[in-house]
Amino acid sequence: MSSSIALSRCPENCMLASSAVVRRQLFLLRSLGGQCCRSQSQSMQGVQGASVTASEADAESIIRRITPALDPIRYKGQAGKIAVIGGCREYTGAPYFAAISALKLGADLSHVFCTKDAATVIKSYSPELIVHPVLEESYSVRDDEKASVSAKVLSEVGKWMERFDCVVVGPGLGRDPFLMDCVSDILRCARQSSIPTVIDGDGMFLVTNNLELVSGNSLAVLTPNINEYKRLVEKALDCEVNDKDGSSQLQLLSSRIGGVTILRKGKSDFVSDGEAVHCVSTFGSPRRCGGQGDILSGSVAVFSSWARHYLLATNETSGRSLSNPMVLGCIAGAALLRRASAHAFQNKKRATLTTDIIEHLGNSLEGICPAE
Amino acid sequence: MSSSIALSRCPENCMLASSAVVRRQLFLLRSLGGQCCRSQSQSMQGVQGASVTASEADAESIIRRITPALDPIRYKGQAGKIAVIGGCREYTGAPYFAAISALKLGADLSHVFCTKDAATVIKSYSPELIVHPVLEESYSVRDDEKASVSAKVLSEVGKWMERFDCVVVGPGLGRDPFLMDCVSDILRCARQSSIPTVIDGDGMFLVTNNLELVSGNSLAVLTPNINEYKRLVEKALDCEVNDKDGSSQLQLLSSRIGGVTILRKGKSDFVSDGEAVHCVSTFGSPRRCGGQGDILSGSVAVFSSWARHYLLATNETSGRSLSNPMVLGCIAGAALLRRASAHAFQNKKRATLTTDIIEHLGNSLEGICPAE
Repeated sequence: MSSSIALSRCPENCMLASSAVVRRQLFLLRSLGGQCCRSQSQSMQGVQGASVTASEADAESIIRRITPALDPIRYKGQAGKIAVIGGCREYTGAPYFAAISALKLGADLSHVFCTKDAATVIKSYSPELIVHPVLEESYSVRDDEKASVSAKVLSEVGKWMERFDCVVVGPGLGRDPFLMDCVSDILRCARQSSIPTVIDGDGMFLVTNNLELVSGNSLAVLTPNINEYKRLVEKALDCEVNDKDGSSQLQLLSSRIGGVTILRKGKSDFVSDGEAVHCVSTFGSPRRCGGQGDILSGSVAVFSSWARHYLLATNETSGRSLSNPMVLGCIAGAALLRRASAHAFQNKKRATLTTDIIEHLGNSLEGICPAE
Repeated sequence: MSSSIALSRCPENCMLASSAVVRRQLFLLRSLGGQCCRSQSQSMQGVQGASVTASEADAESIIRRITPALDPIRYKGQAGKIAVIGGCREYTGAPYFAAISALKLGADLSHVFCTKDAATVIKSYSPELIVHPVLEESYSVRDDEKASVSAKVLSEVGKWMERFDCVVVGPGLGRDPFLMDCVSDILRCARQSSIPTVIDGDGMFLVTNNLELVSGNSLAVLTPNINEYKRLVEKALDCEVNDKDGSSQLQLLSSRIGGVTILRKGKSDFVSDGEAVHCVSTFGSPRRCGGQGDILSGSVAVFSSWARHYLLATNETSGRSLSNPMVLGCIAGAALLRRASAHAFQNKKRATLTTDIIEHLGNSLEGICPAE
C-alpha cells in the first residue's frame, strides 16, 4: 500500500511519461541504471568463484510497491504503453498472449508489430490490440529489395519506439533470417532510445547467437526456459548448466552478459542482474500448455515499466538489485503468473489453457493489490 | 491411480520425450511393438474362421491407468505434442476440433498443418493452436511445379515430425488428388519416424484406396464411421459388412491390414488390433452433429501417446492387446467422448454442438481421473 500512497502524493511526478521533462528524467534514470549495473557486474567477475544462495523474493510486497494507484486524473497511456515484436506466418498466438496479458494486467495500450500474414489473424483475436503489419519474412522479399525493405521496417517500428514504456521482443517471431536481421536492428533502436526490452521465445534464439545485441544493456531482460537457458549458458559461459550451484551460475551468466537481467524459468523461477539472485517459488499449476511464457513476458514488461516509474517518483533505494526495475518486474511477473495459473487450474484442471490463465490475471492482481 | 503413482515414482523415465535417451527407448518400444503386433496378426490369419465375442472394455480403469500424473517438475511438451494434418479451402472446422480437443484433454502443444486458405481461419478460431500453412491443393499448383511443391510440403512437415508424440491425419483434408499425394508422403514419413498415426475423415478415403500406406503399421489407428467401414471391408476383405458376426469380421479386417488398430464407430464402438475385440458401449448422446469424430481422433492421439509413455515407464504387460498403446488410446478416447457428449447433451439437448462437447472434455476426464 505504501507505493500507492507515495504515488498518489506526487501526481505531478509519477506516470507522466508523455511529458518532455519526465522523458528526460527517465532517460537519465535509464542511463544511470545502465551505468550502475555495468560497473557492478564488472566487479562481480572478480568474485565469480563464490557460491551464491538465492533468496525467496517477497513478491507480493513488491507488487504492492510498484503497482500504481488508479487515479481519475490520469489519462490514456499513463498506466503503460507496451509493444510486442512478434507474429509471423506460422505463429500468431504467442504475440497475442503477450500483448493481451499486458492489457489485462492494467496497461493502457498494447501494440503488436508482426508480418502481414499474422496481422489479420492477431487483429481477429481481439479488437483491443493495435496491430501493425510491418515485418517481412524472406519469402516475401526479393534479394535486391532487402536493404530497402529492412530500412523501411526499422523506420516503421522506430517511429513508434519512443512512445513505448517497454518492448517485448520474440513471441511468435519465427526464425526467418531476414526477419531476424530486421529485429536485430529493432533491438539496437530500442537500446539507443533507452527503452526497456524483454526478450522471449525466438528472440532468445536471436540474442543467444548475437549476445552483443543485449550485452551491457541493463534495461534488457532475458526470459529463457529450460532449453533456451541451456543454450545461453553454453554460448556465454562455454560450459554446461550446473544445477548443483545454479544460483552462482545464473549470477555469473548475467554478469558475463554485462548485467542484463535474466529470469530463468522452471519449477522455481530465478532472477538475477549479476548481483543478488532472487527466487519465486510459490506454487502455480502443474499444467505446461504452450503460451504461459508469453503471459510472463507481457507481464514483466508492464511490471518493469511500473517499477521504473515508481523508483523515479520515490527515489527509493533499498538494496542494489531491488532498485533495479527490471528485477522487480521479473519477480512481480513471475509471481502473478503463478497465482493466475493456480486460479485457472483450480477451475479447469487438465483442460486449463493459456487463455484461461489470462482471464485470471485481473483477479490475481486484485487479490494482492486492490484497485480501490 | 496406480499409473499416477508409478509415473511419479519414475520421473526420470516418464514423459521425457525430449531427451535423446528416451527417444531411443521410444524408438525401441515402437519397433518392438510393431514386430509383436505383426507376428501376432500373421498367426491370427490361421484362426480367422473362429467366432469372436467383443468384451466391454473397462474404459475408466484404462483412463486412470494411462493418464499421467501432473507433476510440477515437468516442462512444456512432456504431457504431449500432437499434430493434425488437415484443413483445406473447404473444411476448417474438423482440424480445429481435433487439435483443440487434444489441448483440452491435457496435451501441451497442438499443431495443425493445412493449406494457406484454411490457415487464417483455423488460427482465428483459437490462439492456442500452432497452425502451419504448408499444404497445397491442385488449383494453386501448376503441373510443372508439382514435383518441387510436393517435395517442399514434405520437407516442411517432415522437419517437425520427430517432435510429435502422435499425428492425426485426415480431419478436413478434402480429396484433392495433389493434396492426397502429398499426404501419402507424410504418412510414409510418420511411419519411417515411428510416429503413431490416427487416420480419420478424408484420411480414411486415402488409406482405404491405398492400404499399403498403413498395412503392417502397428502404430496406426483407423477410425472409420459406418460408411468408411463399409468401404474398408469391401476393399480389404472383398465382401460386405457382416453385422451378425461383426467382431470376428473386425478382428479379421485388422489382421488382414497387418495388425493396424481399427476403431469402428457406431452405436457401440468396437476396437481391435487383430487380437481381441473390445467394445465401448456406455451411452453418450443421441445428437449426431458433425465434428464428434474429430474430437475422437484428437482424443485418441493424446491417450495413445500417454499409453505409450505409461507402458514404457512401467514395463507393464497385462494381456497382449491391452498392452497395445493404440488399443488403449482408442478405448479411452471413445469412452471419454461418450461421457463428454452425455454432459453436453444434458445441458443443451437438441442444440448440442461439437464445441459444447469439447467444453466438457475437461470435467469428464476430471470425473474419472482427478488431476489432484
